[in-house]
Formats: sequence, C-alpha cells, structure tokens
Amino acid sequence: MTQIPLEDRVALEDLLTSYCLAVDTLSDMDALLGVFTPDAVCDLSGIGLPSLHGHEGIRGFFDSVFADMTHHAHFVSNFRVDRYEGDTASIRAYVMGMGRSRDGNDVLVYVRYFLDCVRTPDGWKVTRFFEDALMPLPGSLDEIHGKR
Amino acid sequence: MTQIPLEDRVALEDLLTSYCLAVDTLSDMDALLGVFTPDAVCDLSGIGLPSLHGHEGIRGFFDSVFADMTHHAHFVSNFRVDRYEGDTASIRAYVMGMGRSRDGNDVLVYVRYFLDCVRTPDGWKVTRFFEDALMPLPGSLDEIHGKR
Amino acid sequence: MTQIPLEDRVALEDLLTSYCLAVDTLSDMDALLGVFTPDAVCDLSGIGLPSLHGHEGIRGFFDSVFADMTHHAHFVSNFRVDRYEGDTASIRAYVMGMGRSRDGNDVLVYVRYFLDCVRTPDGWKVTRFFEDALMPLPGSLDEIHGKR
Repeated sequence: MTQIPLEDRVALEDLLTSYCLAVDTLSDMDALLGVFTPDAVCDLSGIGLPSLHGHEGIRGFFDSVFADMTHHAHFVSNFRVDRYEGDTASIRAYVMGMGRSRDGNDVLVYVRYFLDCVRTPDGWKVTRFFEDALMPLPGSLDEIHGKR
Repeated sequence: MTQIPLEDRVALEDLLTSYCLAVDTLSDMDALLGVFTPDAVCDLSGIGLPSLHGHEGIRGFFDSVFADMTHHAHFVSNFRVDRYEGDTASIRAYVMGMGRSRDGNDVLVYVRYFLDCVRTPDGWKVTRFFEDALMPLPGSLDEIHGKR
Repeated sequence: MTQIPLEDRVALEDLLTSYCLAVDTLSDMDALLGVFTPDAVCDLSGIGLPSLHGHEGIRGFFDSVFADMTHHAHFVSNFRVDRYEGDTASIRAYVMGMGRSRDGNDVLVYVRYFLDCVRTPDGWKVTRFFEDALMPLPGSLDEIHGKR
C-alpha cells in the first residue's frame, strides 16, 4: 500500500469528492474549474467522449453538459492512492455516475477515475483526469454527451 | 476545504454510517435514536415525507417503517465536512437508499443528507437531519412511506 | 464506536478495497490471494455459494469466476470497524457488486461483507471472509456462480 500522510490522503479524497459535487451542481463552473490546474487535461476518451484541454476546454464541454442536464449524481467509492511523492500524487476511485437530460434521456455509468494531482499554494489540484468503464456503457451516454 | 481534526472527521463519518446501519436493521430503535440528541429534528420534508421532532417523533415514524419493510439498504458516499467549530459541525453525503415493503413494493432513491451535529459526553450526535433528492423520486416512496 | 489508530483504520479500509479491486481485475489471482492469509476461509454460504478454504480453495473458485465473467465491479461503502485488538480486527462494509458473464447474463447484488483480519509482517490480511445479502438476491447469481 502506498504510504501517505493521512492529512494528504483526506485532502486528495476531498478533491475527488469536490469534482463530483461540482459536476452535480449543474451550475457552479468556478467550483468545477477550481478542482483543476489551469493547464489540466480532462481526458474523457476512455468513455468515448472528448479530451478537454485546460480550463477553457473543460468549461466548453461542461457548459453544454450543464445546459443539457436536469439531474446529475456521481457516487464515489473504492478510493485508492496509487502514487505519492510529497507534492504529486496519483489516485483512483470507482464512480457510479447518473443523470437525466432535458429531453428525458437517462444515463447510468459505472466507471473508474484516475487522477494525477499536484500540491499548489491553493491546495491539491488535478493535473490530469482520465476515466474508463467498469461495465458496458449505455447508448444514452453518447446520445446525450457525444454530439460535442 | 474545512479544517477538522482527523479523529473528529472519522467520528462524524461513523455517525452517518451508524444512522444508515440502524435504519437498515429494521428493528434496532435504540441504535437509531442513539444517533440523535433527544430534541433532534429529523426533517424528511425535502423528499415529501414528514418532519419528525425529538426521539418520540423519530420513533413514531420509524416504528411504522420498520413494520412495513422487509429489506432496507442505505449506501453512503461523497462524505464532506461543510462546517466545523470544535463542538458543532455540519456534514453532508450522498446516499443511495433502497428497500422492499411487505407488500412487495420496491423503492430506490438517490439523495443527499445534511446533518448538523454536536459533541456530547456520549460522542457526536445529530441535532438536525435533512435530506433532499439528487434524482427524481420514484412514486413508490410516497406509496410506502407517505401515508403517515 | 470502536477505538482504533487512524493508520490501522485506513489500512483495513484499503485491505477491503484491495479485495474488490482484485476481484474486478478478472485476472490478477496473486493480488486476490494476497488479501488473504494462506489458511483463510472465504465463506460465501451467506449468499448461497460455497465456503472456500485456503488459497487453493479461493483460487479454484475464482479461476472459474475470472473465466466466466467479462465485467465485474464491486463498490464499497459504509465501512465500519466492529472490533480492534491491536493485531486482530473485525470490519464490515456494504458492497454493491455487479457483473456480466460471457453468456451475457447480468448479476447485481447488494450485500454486507464481514472480515476478520490479522496484522502480519506483510500488512493486514483477511483470515475469514463472510458476506450476506441486504436485498433479495437475483436468480442470475446462482445461474452464473452456483454451479461450482
């Protein structure tokens, strides 16, 4: 098991939760962008969606997501620290993500998140986000988000 | 992120888990009431159910729930400390709650819990419990619990 | 609440997560066996499956599981320390477990895990694993795994 001070472990788990809470507000772009460094890569290609570059790329994609969805809920579990080197770390978790779009389409995914993180003066931030699927992805994922 | 000693963070997360474990016993009213201060408010109005006042109010509602249900399971994730002031704290979490009633009706909800907590000589207790829905609530929730 | 040093609590939670991650690889038998002491009992009788004895028993069952399944995902929540005595501990958790078999059969269970653990020179290990059902079990569980 990777050794890591408990304070950092908790901070990293909170960072992951912060991403999910922000995504689920469907409105709070500042909270969402605050999870990432300005030049972060949010790579959604593992579930067939785009790879987003920097705050502008992330904002562009999630502006559309926030506009399209009426409900969002992302449940984290199985948090794990894969790597810790003092000022950088890699973590992973399982996420059950679900939502309903304005046109009434439901989506439910079971995925893994992989986050590379860096300690900044403003706390831990994500430099690279990647996710892949644990279970077969529903067609509604592409119908709702894939058009971008 | 709210600063909180790790011992208190863990104790608060355990308190939340204790509520779910107690609710899922479908029998252990002492364990359930032990989560709350005697004058606690358990406000379920955010999901269309009653607001319960004090141990007597909580007991009255959950006596019926325990009698009506054959299965209960409440899964916690996304634990978060919103406020910490030494002897009081506010926490939140996501919960996937499910159950089956004696008449075979299934219910499944995706909700958020918001708990105000106080440190007592007997450990942390809940003074106010509130929940609201993350995803649209099923009609079976009202069919099973709403008649009270 | 059971008193336990935070380092041990985290290590025990990591041990539980390690079991789920290993089971979900559908290939990494060494990681799976590494969770258990050589003479551990993995008792699945609480969900109608066999009780497995030692690494050989566990390997035999999971060789078949790994061969039969194309997808696996086990989500942990509601972690709880039931007992801690320095070098031994008992923990529990809720798990939402799901999978798809090669013949396209889907399975989804909501269960509780109960683990007896021991501190070894190689970290905490499971000496006894037991699980039971929180919600009615689907018929597909027996169709997929029960033939062994």
